[in-house]
Amino acid sequence: MKKLAAALALSFAISPAMAEEEEMVVNIKRLSMETTQKIAMAAIEACRKEGINIGVTVVDRNGIPQVMLRDTLAAHLTIEISKRKAYTAANFNATTSSLEDRANTAVGRFDDLIMSAGGVPINVGGFIYGGIGVSGAPSGETDEKCAQAGLAAVAEDLEMM
Amino acid sequence: MKKLAAALALSFAISPAMAEEEEMVVNIKRLSMETTQKIAMAAIEACRKEGINIGVTVVDRNGIPQVMLRDTLAAHLTIEISKRKAYTAANFNATTSSLEDRANTAVGRFDDLIMSAGGVPINVGGFIYGGIGVSGAPSGETDEKCAQAGLAAVAEDLEMM
Amino acid sequence: MKKLAAALALSFAISPAMAEEEEMVVNIKRLSMETTQKIAMAAIEACRKEGINIGVTVVDRNGIPQVMLRDTLAAHLTIEISKRKAYTAANFNATTSSLEDRANTAVGRFDDLIMSAGGVPINVGGFIYGGIGVSGAPSGETDEKCAQAGLAAVAEDLEMM
Amino acid sequence: MKKLAAALALSFAISPAMAEEEEMVVNIKRLSMETTQKIAMAAIEACRKEGINIGVTVVDRNGIPQVMLRDTLAAHLTIEISKRKAYTAANFNATTSSLEDRANTAVGRFDDLIMSAGGVPINVGGFIYGGIGVSGAPSGETDEKCAQAGLAAVAEDLEMM
Amino acid sequence: MKKLAAALALSFAISPAMAEEEEMVVNIKRLSMETTQKIAMAAIEACRKEGINIGVTVVDRNGIPQVMLRDTLAAHLTIEISKRKAYTAANFNATTSSLEDRANTAVGRFDDLIMSAGGVPINVGGFIYGGIGVSGAPSGETDEKCAQAGLAAVAEDLEMM
Amino acid sequence: MKKLAAALALSFAISPAMAEEEEMVVNIKRLSMETTQKIAMAAIEACRKEGINIGVTVVDRNGIPQVMLRDTLAAHLTIEISKRKAYTAANFNATTSSLEDRANTAVGRFDDLIMSAGGVPINVGGFIYGGIGVSGAPSGETDEKCAQAGLAAVAEDLEMM
Amino acid sequence: MKKLAAALALSFAISPAMAEEEEMVVNIKRLSMETTQKIAMAAIEACRKEGINIGVTVVDRNGIPQVMLRDTLAAHLTIEISKRKAYTAANFNATTSSLEDRANTAVGRFDDLIMSAGGVPINVGGFIYGGIGVSGAPSGETDEKCAQAGLAAVAEDLEMM
Amino acid sequence: MKKLAAALALSFAISPAMAEEEEMVVNIKRLSMETTQKIAMAAIEACRKEGINIGVTVVDRNGIPQVMLRDTLAAHLTIEISKRKAYTAANFNATTSSLEDRANTAVGRFDDLIMSAGGVPINVGGFIYGGIGVSGAPSGETDEKCAQAGLAAVAEDLEMM
Repeated sequence: MKKLAAALALSFAISPAMAEEEEMVVNIKRLSMETTQKIAMAAIEACRKEGINIGVTVVDRNGIPQVMLRDTLAAHLTIEISKRKAYTAANFNATTSSLEDRANTAVGRFDDLIMSAGGVPINVGGFIYGGIGVSGAPSGETDEKCAQAGLAAVAEDLEMM
Repeated sequence: MKKLAAALALSFAISPAMAEEEEMVVNIKRLSMETTQKIAMAAIEACRKEGINIGVTVVDRNGIPQVMLRDTLAAHLTIEISKRKAYTAANFNATTSSLEDRANTAVGRFDDLIMSAGGVPINVGGFIYGGIGVSGAPSGETDEKCAQAGLAAVAEDLEMM
Repeated sequence: MKKLAAALALSFAISPAMAEEEEMVVNIKRLSMETTQKIAMAAIEACRKEGINIGVTVVDRNGIPQVMLRDTLAAHLTIEISKRKAYTAANFNATTSSLEDRANTAVGRFDDLIMSAGGVPINVGGFIYGGIGVSGAPSGETDEKCAQAGLAAVAEDLEMM
Repeated sequence: MKKLAAALALSFAISPAMAEEEEMVVNIKRLSMETTQKIAMAAIEACRKEGINIGVTVVDRNGIPQVMLRDTLAAHLTIEISKRKAYTAANFNATTSSLEDRANTAVGRFDDLIMSAGGVPINVGGFIYGGIGVSGAPSGETDEKCAQAGLAAVAEDLEMM
Repeated sequence: MKKLAAALALSFAISPAMAEEEEMVVNIKRLSMETTQKIAMAAIEACRKEGINIGVTVVDRNGIPQVMLRDTLAAHLTIEISKRKAYTAANFNATTSSLEDRANTAVGRFDDLIMSAGGVPINVGGFIYGGIGVSGAPSGETDEKCAQAGLAAVAEDLEMM
Repeated sequence: MKKLAAALALSFAISPAMAEEEEMVVNIKRLSMETTQKIAMAAIEACRKEGINIGVTVVDRNGIPQVMLRDTLAAHLTIEISKRKAYTAANFNATTSSLEDRANTAVGRFDDLIMSAGGVPINVGGFIYGGIGVSGAPSGETDEKCAQAGLAAVAEDLEMM
Repeated sequence: MKKLAAALALSFAISPAMAEEEEMVVNIKRLSMETTQKIAMAAIEACRKEGINIGVTVVDRNGIPQVMLRDTLAAHLTIEISKRKAYTAANFNATTSSLEDRANTAVGRFDDLIMSAGGVPINVGGFIYGGIGVSGAPSGETDEKCAQAGLAAVAEDLEMM
Repeated sequence: MKKLAAALALSFAISPAMAEEEEMVVNIKRLSMETTQKIAMAAIEACRKEGINIGVTVVDRNGIPQVMLRDTLAAHLTIEISKRKAYTAANFNATTSSLEDRANTAVGRFDDLIMSAGGVPINVGGFIYGGIGVSGAPSGETDEKCAQAGLAAVAEDLEMM
């Protein structure tokens, strides 16, 4: 298979991204379930240390869920909000906190998006694997901190891939 | 069954909340139908005294309806609006009036939420049983007043639980 | 059947409204199809005089459609927008133009509502029969003017009911 | 207002029904909230006597909910199933048990319909007020029995309307 | 503009249909609102002669509604069922009664389709203008008869187009 | 708080279940996240031993998800199918395989239900905690076997609760 | 068939538009698939020159998709956003950039609409054929530029139709 | 990156499939837009030779659309049906014709699935790239034949990847 490493290293929504047209097939790296679960558990634990029960979703590059964990007392709402934050982060290759000033635009109000802190893209070594979304903390900053803790749990190992 | 009273006494969305991880099972108190209906009827009657026909929904801790009453001449709209106010109050453990300044944020615009006065959490003795939502009065203040009347009808007895 | 004329004469969402609780049944007046179609055609024709093709929906008191007409070249969008304007007018017993300052509130953003000019309640002699919604004119003012023309076509006769 | 009693006495979906075209307005009788709640409570109690917790919905003639009660331990599913059975009974002016042989037809599979025992039309004195739907009993026969108990609680009084 | 009359004369779903690829634009005939309303009213009146109140929808070639009439006492259900029958007839260029043996196939169960008698394609002179759907009669045969009466009201004039 | 152990020990949908009406509050046991995740991982591993990648969802008593794991190569479809099987098992307090003969009834075709093998209720010591749903194996029998393995991983400990 | 060229030359939503009521049928021009695909490919290529992978949808006059292309690395989100921009442009006969100041009105927030740059109406010679929607570039200006490149690829030839 | 070629060579829904758990990342091959469009055009052309206008959708491994082409006169319905057939073929790694005997099971009736001929998995060299769905021909056999023609247009080249 021909390599498209250069193209894949580019973000595909915010930064320019291009597949060279002569290719028939491109190679997409996908996190295993173990990796996504490790991310989700680290986010859960980071928030527990703050005394908070959250919901967390990890999605693939398309924004499709790979794992969803809802802590024992996390609110029902955290299932869908964490999913949409993860979807947003993966599709924009950006933290949802950095998108907050676009939250009330025509695109920002789109159903599947939540441009509010708590979503973090899984972008390691220039490749977008997917996104992490956290919901349930009193502030979005804490949601994001827990999502970042999830990413941190696997980032070093992913860099060596 | 091990007790998690301390954890359960904490709000789970606004205030910090945490289930200790070594527990296998936690104990959730759930209002009986009689209790939820008593709440709903008290809200209906409080609004009738103001000359207003409302719709009212009482939801459990997850935000799932236990009872819905739509007064004889209440508008169709009151079914869904009262349900979403109750869902919002239960999931945020807060009156929806206190959330109004978050109504036009990315999370506040989420489909299932209505951050407009008329929703009241059923939080008695530090435990969140669910939420009450009222819709149909000319002002949200009156909606909330009727919802509070619903809560008042059972609060004292619930405190002794 | 006992009469509840006084209660029915009151608006049920904006103004106070109350069914006396000892009643088993109330009497709701419903427009016949001929009446709703006469309304819709008058709205269509009023806009044609302005050189405009519109979509128009007439709903009953619950906000449920009785008739929908889409003029020959009216945009697809006018089907759903006219329906929601009619629903809004019927449920709030108010023109949607008078609700425009509430359009961007938590309730105003609710899916089924369009708080933008073009919706007119069918309130004759103090009774709410339903609502009319018009969409397709370049300005909401013209939409409302055509909806009002629809109401005018039947109001005098309805007053004698 | 002109009377359309004859027309209204006819079922409008199964049996022939016709509004005379020269009428501008017809008169629709609507149950008060007290009546619908009395129906719902009687259904709940009839099933409790069998040792069963159910969900019950009472809808108006259009199939729109007026009251929903979910007994303390009734399954989540009973909310929506009871609503659809009530909607079906009201729209077809028939018990849903009598429609079971049409359940697997193109119309019977329509989303809003559940042609399975447990739905009973509120047809008293030849007028269709709405429908009752019950869900949660081990058999549809018991569901229907409880719905019928709900109707029985008000039928005699309604006949004198 | 080049003519594609031959291609357009063919049904596009059941019978073979082909646009020649060198064309940039094809010409689609669309019924005016007057024509669709004439169809709908004729269907309403045909069923009234049988003593039945129906709902009727007329859709364009894509299956998008142009007019919906719900007779005074027609059930709520007739709005959506008539729309789906019309959609089915237009998309398959066939009466829905002729499709009944396909009703319980994977395609026949598709949400937007109702393969049950009462839908008639508006196919005149070999061109598919759209479809008519009728719902509300005790039998599908009567629904179809009324839909056919709708078509008959305009067919002769359309043939001269 | 008064005890309702007897009532709670009864299934609430298939078997008779009743909350005594004089109670204000009942006590519902809820699995912690650790427990639900232990269940999900055991199901994943049981299927991996068969060389199969599955999706698994564990829901609470209401049928609301607590955890969702989608194995690395499991199909997209397994997210929603596993969720609906778990919902079905929890709401009927029955394995979905035992419901297969009801799959093509009016209730069985309801959107949220999948009456096909792979769903197992979490019923331990006579109390319904929720449900497990598995999707992705070539046969439903294998799906169910993996779901049962999930339950087995915690059943003994739960019995001592 | 009678000609309605004058009426068709007018925009139908923003500018006045009117079908003369005596007509039975109007003539609507529809782009062939080759034409819509040529448009879509030109948009894709214009954005590739900028180093960007986009999603593009071309819709007909009703706003119904004729072609959707998602470039190799374009985000999942671009499918639906490009569709809604195209729908918006076709229904308003306006670029979505020109509608941005209406984006946060009651109508602008309607689900099917995205009033954000990237949508361009296919209006050639005064006739509205449909719309083009582009999503995926870092800025709406670039999205619109690519959509315009799509239109430019066929405009000259369409003018001769 | 570690290779998981063996696992990836296995179908992931029908045949056993397993990612080895020690892997952090797996490698998924994705078709470029050029390839998916080549497939779609070949399907369109194969059906045009039969005198038929179809709709065709090509989806990726998750079942997410990459391209949708609707031929000039293809029915509206073909958009969604072709998408669901493609989704089904990709998720089951099987032609939808081979699944027809499962079409009326609980899983087969799931909303996103259409188990009717016309869907073909893009499985080349033992790897599942996605699926092709075709709708619009008078028979499913012809739909499938055109989908196969689409696959044939790229299969040989893909085998050399």
